[in-house]
Amino acid sequence: VINTLGIVGVGLLGGSLALAVKQRQVARRVLGTDRLPGLLLRAAERGLLDETRPDVPSLAAGCDVVVFCTPVDVIAAQVIEAGPHCRPGTVLTDVGSTKAGIVRAVEGRLPAGVDYIGGHPLAGSEKTGPEHSRTDLFAARLVLLTPGPEAAMAAVRRLWEGLGAHVEVIDAEEHDQALALTSHLPHLVASALAGALPAEWARVTASGFRDTTRLAAGSPELWRAIFVANREAVREALSRFRDQLDAFDAALRVGDDREVERLLEEAKRVRDSLSK
Amino acid sequence: VINTLGIVGVGLLGGSLALAVKQRQVARRVLGTDRLPGLLLRAAERGLLDETRPDVPSLAAGCDVVVFCTPVDVIAAQVIEAGPHCRPGTVLTDVGSTKAGIVRAVEGRLPAGVDYIGGHPLAGSEKTGPEHSRTDLFAARLVLLTPGPEAAMAAVRRLWEGLGAHVEVIDAEEHDQALALTSHLPHLVASALAGALPAEWARVTASGFRDTTRLAAGSPELWRAIFVANREAVREALSRFRDQLDAFDAALRVGDDREVERLLEEAKRVRDSLSK
Repeated sequence: VINTLGIVGVGLLGGSLALAVKQRQVARRVLGTDRLPGLLLRAAERGLLDETRPDVPSLAAGCDVVVFCTPVDVIAAQVIEAGPHCRPGTVLTDVGSTKAGIVRAVEGRLPAGVDYIGGHPLAGSEKTGPEHSRTDLFAARLVLLTPGPEAAMAAVRRLWEGLGAHVEVIDAEEHDQALALTSHLPHLVASALAGALPAEWARVTASGFRDTTRLAAGSPELWRAIFVANREAVREALSRFRDQLDAFDAALRVGDDREVERLLEEAKRVRDSLSK
Repeated sequence: VINTLGIVGVGLLGGSLALAVKQRQVARRVLGTDRLPGLLLRAAERGLLDETRPDVPSLAAGCDVVVFCTPVDVIAAQVIEAGPHCRPGTVLTDVGSTKAGIVRAVEGRLPAGVDYIGGHPLAGSEKTGPEHSRTDLFAARLVLLTPGPEAAMAAVRRLWEGLGAHVEVIDAEEHDQALALTSHLPHLVASALAGALPAEWARVTASGFRDTTRLAAGSPELWRAIFVANREAVREALSRFRDQLDAFDAALRVGDDREVERLLEEAKRVRDSLSK
């Protein structure tokens, strides 16, 4: 059991982490901080936190494990800011959707005895804010961790496994390439599809359009940061996706009906193979 | 109340129509037929039909309204086949996802007193077969009808309104253009995204990838017929979608973070404006 867990950023992910950690008794005490005092107040009022702290240094000073649940473009700076205030043995980790840039930025910037392990639970929602926190957000989900010192890895692994998640260790670069295709590209595609809808046809949309564009309802600020942080891998994934579009378009253009059906069959095979 | 309703094609849509019509007492008797004897038997065994008929002519001969719930590449031929066997006053309609080609093919091919009204309920599922029939599939959904003689329009309108659906009349060409973007393009995009997934990364997919690709699980045969029937409008919709992808790609390439966020904001505005 973790004695004191700190959460930096108490939105949907940080709030859900706080809820789950208390319910599963993975930590005795949960402290939280947020750049937005209003958000921190809302999280505290909902009983998600035992105590609040006004900033990252004062939070870091009292914690055994700190989880950064903030946008990917601020995580590295916050981890580095926390370092000097931590007691030896403190483990810092995060839930950011990109890893390579953060891992690189933090490397060599922490005092001896304080370690950072990159983390990414494959869980989330297009909803934002502590109001949407759910105790089961991480249950049975996959959490990807980047390699690090053994004791720190073990601590972070225990945290997530204590919440019912599965843990897998993955190189930060490979993480970013894989997620560019499995998470960032779907978001881009959903947004491009929503952006292509002429206003006058909104009334003839049904569940198909809504499901395919659901991700577009996510926070533009959070996702801009993710796309920018993973720019190259996202553009590679987009290029791979365009090849598929080209194949469909070419088959339609030349009237190759069998090829259209073959492409649909292959896509169905892939989709059907994914777990529910 | 319709005295005898005929359903040609007793899959998910035909089966759900049969269920709903009986439950809401919109027709006294429901007859069904299907090209696949096994499917017809399964629908009959599940109690979806009062009686079965071996083929379209024998079904059409005994019905006041016939609804064709078959793939879009066979509907027109079946409607034309049914015509000579219908009593005067019989109304033929369908649930096909494309309209212009069917309306054109049927025009002038029916005997006097027998009318065809093109129909398309914006309802469905990636699931197929009478086993997945649902009584509420059409409740509160929009049904689009192509223009036709007044009495026939009124009969088809009463049928769908009796099932709790809303009816709107739309020109067949406009229907196909709108649906190319709101329904056929999302299916193509979902399939292209599923097709772009490397097998080794399937394990790092989460709900975002699954929702965005849900449509790809639909029937390749049914959707090939839809894409082929609406080839030009689908390619136009795809071109519009590509313009959005290009805008994202260009903003990422030149590092225009504000433009990335603006595109995401615009997409979120559109997505948030859609009804639940």
